[in-house]
Amino acid sequence: MAIESNPLIDDGLVDFLLYSVLDAESLCKLDAYAQHSKETFDLYIDSIRRFARQDLLPSYKPMDQEPPQFRDGRIHTHPALPKLYEQMVELGTLTATRPESVGGQQMPMLVHTMASAYLMAANLSAYGFIGLTVGAGHLIEAFGSDELKERFMTRLYSGEWTGTMALTEPQAGSSLGDITTSATPTDDGYYLIKGSKIFISGADHGITENIVNLTLARIDGAPEGTKGISLFAIPKRREENGSLVSNDVTVAGMIHKIGWRGLPSLALEFGDEGDCRGWLVGEPNQGLRFMFQMMNEARIMVGVNGFATASVAYHESRLYALDRKQGRTFGQRGGEPVSIIQHADVRRMLLRQKAIVEGSLALLATVSCYSDVAEHGGSTEERERAQLLLDLLTPVAKTFPAEWGFQANALAIQVLGGYGYTSEYLPESYMRDQKLNTLHEGTNGIQSMDLLGRKVMAKGGAPLRALAEEIGSTIARAREAGCDSDLCSALEEAIAIVGSATMELAQRGMAGDAEGMLGHSWDYLDMFATLVIGWQWLNMAAVSLSAPISEARKSATDAASKYWIRTEVARIPQLAALCRSNEDSYLRAEPGWF
Amino acid sequence: MAIESNPLIDDGLVDFLLYSVLDAESLCKLDAYAQHSKETFDLYIDSIRRFARQDLLPSYKPMDQEPPQFRDGRIHTHPALPKLYEQMVELGTLTATRPESVGGQQMPMLVHTMASAYLMAANLSAYGFIGLTVGAGHLIEAFGSDELKERFMTRLYSGEWTGTMALTEPQAGSSLGDITTSATPTDDGYYLIKGSKIFISGADHGITENIVNLTLARIDGAPEGTKGISLFAIPKRREENGSLVSNDVTVAGMIHKIGWRGLPSLALEFGDEGDCRGWLVGEPNQGLRFMFQMMNEARIMVGVNGFATASVAYHESRLYALDRKQGRTFGQRGGEPVSIIQHADVRRMLLRQKAIVEGSLALLATVSCYSDVAEHGGSTEERERAQLLLDLLTPVAKTFPAEWGFQANALAIQVLGGYGYTSEYLPESYMRDQKLNTLHEGTNGIQSMDLLGRKVMAKGGAPLRALAEEIGSTIARAREAGCDSDLCSALEEAIAIVGSATMELAQRGMAGDAEGMLGHSWDYLDMFATLVIGWQWLNMAAVSLSAPISEARKSATDAASKYWIRTEVARIPQLAALCRSNEDSYLRAEPGWF
Repeated sequence: MAIESNPLIDDGLVDFLLYSVLDAESLCKLDAYAQHSKETFDLYIDSIRRFARQDLLPSYKPMDQEPPQFRDGRIHTHPALPKLYEQMVELGTLTATRPESVGGQQMPMLVHTMASAYLMAANLSAYGFIGLTVGAGHLIEAFGSDELKERFMTRLYSGEWTGTMALTEPQAGSSLGDITTSATPTDDGYYLIKGSKIFISGADHGITENIVNLTLARIDGAPEGTKGISLFAIPKRREENGSLVSNDVTVAGMIHKIGWRGLPSLALEFGDEGDCRGWLVGEPNQGLRFMFQMMNEARIMVGVNGFATASVAYHESRLYALDRKQGRTFGQRGGEPVSIIQHADVRRMLLRQKAIVEGSLALLATVSCYSDVAEHGGSTEERERAQLLLDLLTPVAKTFPAEWGFQANALAIQVLGGYGYTSEYLPESYMRDQKLNTLHEGTNGIQSMDLLGRKVMAKGGAPLRALAEEIGSTIARAREAGCDSDLCSALEEAIAIVGSATMELAQRGMAGDAEGMLGHSWDYLDMFATLVIGWQWLNMAAVSLSAPISEARKSATDAASKYWIRTEVARIPQLAALCRSNEDSYLRAEPGWF
Repeated sequence: MAIESNPLIDDGLVDFLLYSVLDAESLCKLDAYAQHSKETFDLYIDSIRRFARQDLLPSYKPMDQEPPQFRDGRIHTHPALPKLYEQMVELGTLTATRPESVGGQQMPMLVHTMASAYLMAANLSAYGFIGLTVGAGHLIEAFGSDELKERFMTRLYSGEWTGTMALTEPQAGSSLGDITTSATPTDDGYYLIKGSKIFISGADHGITENIVNLTLARIDGAPEGTKGISLFAIPKRREENGSLVSNDVTVAGMIHKIGWRGLPSLALEFGDEGDCRGWLVGEPNQGLRFMFQMMNEARIMVGVNGFATASVAYHESRLYALDRKQGRTFGQRGGEPVSIIQHADVRRMLLRQKAIVEGSLALLATVSCYSDVAEHGGSTEERERAQLLLDLLTPVAKTFPAEWGFQANALAIQVLGGYGYTSEYLPESYMRDQKLNTLHEGTNGIQSMDLLGRKVMAKGGAPLRALAEEIGSTIARAREAGCDSDLCSALEEAIAIVGSATMELAQRGMAGDAEGMLGHSWDYLDMFATLVIGWQWLNMAAVSLSAPISEARKSATDAASKYWIRTEVARIPQLAALCRSNEDSYLRAEPGWF
């Protein structure tokens, strides 16, 4: 039973973040966005959110319940998809952030993040086809020759064909240096590809006539490991004499995923018949570098999915809690049962969800804004500083909405009680959907090592110094605005604690003690993300006091910021102590101890 | 793909807990268990675990994938069930803990808990039919007349019929005082029942010819609220002229649960035709009291389910991590990929699972032992003290394995990476199964209020004093055995902090400030459970040093105890501060703020 009035995302929150917290209009002063204004931003978001609510959300449950079928060597996706895909293309989602030169609208990432979040909240699988196609098109736009752009990018951006990212192989998993798919040069400008890929989302479907797989492979004789990997465009069908013929890309199997069930995840075989042609994108052996230049964007999009999945479930449980009558409040004797939102423990579960959900969106909006400034900022200094912050915060923007969002999704089920445990209600499906976000585009464990081992350590600690300055500005603004001083002090202490813990871990790393530095990278991520979300909440609380928003929104922002800082930021001293400690229980544990 | 060598539970752990940690043999000195010995305990457990591994586990996945069907007004359960049920009856599971006078073996609860955990780990739905039947039989044994025992209990204990617990109604949920099912007396010794129940597990199936629903209802004219609820035995079919005829109990619908999919959960209608007969169990208006006298046992059984579900998933992920090769360790250059258990972050996820799983079993074994002593202990003092500890620890024994076990289940998926996200592997189904344990037999939020509002406050604080003494003895034993002194000190400080926080909250309660006492009951439960599991781990570490176990088990026990105390018990000061603080963000939040 879907609650039909589910708003997916709180529109007021989106407005507040765009126009009060982040001043999206100021982006229009940059040359790249000069043609835009609050009006074009709002028009884009409004058209998307209307479609998301009216057309996309109703297709979610049917697509979850009737997943794709693998018959006769082909994948048969849900019949609603072709029309929905066409509608999303018409709304401009494929090229919203691309420049006019390739047919785009050059919308700031900030605005597109907000808009696409509605689509993900409504039906993340359906939007997945768009997201993958954008990613594939963008790779060719950035690194491909004009010929490849003409052949592939234009068809991807027009919506005529869709795209995929084909990285993972069965034997290699996250260890991309171990991939073995081979590419043999020919004299005709293409390579003959042979190999197996797994977990390739959207690599077959019934939506468009062709699919372009952006694929990592090794050219014969390439160096071993990560330095010998090249990027290829490998279409499912290739053009010959004006028509499309098979390119020897075979679906070897469909993976039965537990969520995202509208989007098929496939095992692919390239070159079973020895006739699979791939076109090299950019220089040879640069495949991983190209992919990783897109990785910030891809990881932020995983974060947006995490946010969106937690948001729609939060609203589902909120509406249920307002409606469902059961029990009495503390000390109430007799009388009619009350709405369960009157129970303190239900409000605890809702406020925790809200703090996670809205804190996630604030962070994602912030990093999207850094992404816009990093690419199009007015000065080199501005661009470099934004890039520093973007790189530092990307692992947090990927993991926080996924990992804490999963907790929020479990709470949404809990609010519904026994009804939450049934497939008649939606929260259980959102929990299944969310789990993927802790796994794909680099598992959360890998993100924690990326954060501590690379991102905070980069450039002599410049990213963390830049973040400390940002947090410092927020604290100053909060003090001036009249926020409770204990919140400001708590955040001030937390950033100092995180800074000194990081310094100590960096010293271990420089002394060659990789395990001593990274052994508690998970706890470090927990601590760091908790601080970052505390910063976002203090910032929202400070801005809210003078923003043109309702009293209820001001009170709610105040409550959620206090909840997060007093309950969660308060954990930071203990987490820092753990990171600095020599607690080595699992580090020294031997396989035979398990 | 099930990993066929999955042991469900570590046999060595069971032996260690039974014979080294808890000295199960000493129970045989009590009159009630005089006929037992280590040999009879081991025989019972061995026969059960062999059946669980060989016969029950292979039926788990088919039952998850082919849930019951509701056709022609009847529920059609999985065809494997009748034979499995018969085998479990033959193994003595229905009456293992019951006295000889009713055909039982009077096995200590401690031993039965261990044995039944294997059945739950192998297939919790199949075992669910046994658990429900035992519960129904036990209610009649404890409170029913001889006539009812003859009519119903004997058939339940023989395995001829099965039982259910029919408490919940659609409009009332957890608020049992609001149930409205009515019972109208007749002159023929029975009552005419009319009403609707929901979420009634096992209330129809194809296993036995009859089902007895132990049902809460209101006798006409009974007092309002919880004081007017009576307990009835309402069979699906009643005996007339030597044969079974319909008793007007109708299946109104089947709930599509997301886990426990072998065990149907039903909506029932009593008396649609005005001819549903129920037999009063015990005195009128005592129904809730009777149910709650069984509640300790039922809640501990939920805890055992939580443990078992986390345990089987832990072993699944452990075996996968030993087998799966991927990536390189810190600083390793080149060479073959290693088993992923070589990665520190994978061992973190395994050790956390192990600490939760084995800490849960230690706690469940401990409370089962208290249950045995509370019922059959040699002196009034012993019995009363055991009852104090049993009552205090029951909400923890119910929630810890369910709530932390859910975290463990999510980690099991994470260890398998993308493969964990597929229904080809089992961890995802265990995560679905586990979620129910946070909801049924009193949601975990309700448990937290029971713990803080009732259990620790009972009898002037005597239960907490008794627990502090137990923990004090463990610390003394650990010091003597030579455990690291920082672990002992950490636990000593933790119990003092919990004690003083409890004192302050109790004072608020006595001053009439229910919200000030209970507002952070969830954080209190988190703190209290973390302490209790820390106690269990220190106890295991202390005992392990001189126990007849392998060096690997000693090392593993040492590692897990250090992990729990240094990582988790270390959170207690912050949680205590939160419970004592006036942090009121969700307490004062208004519905319109969400």
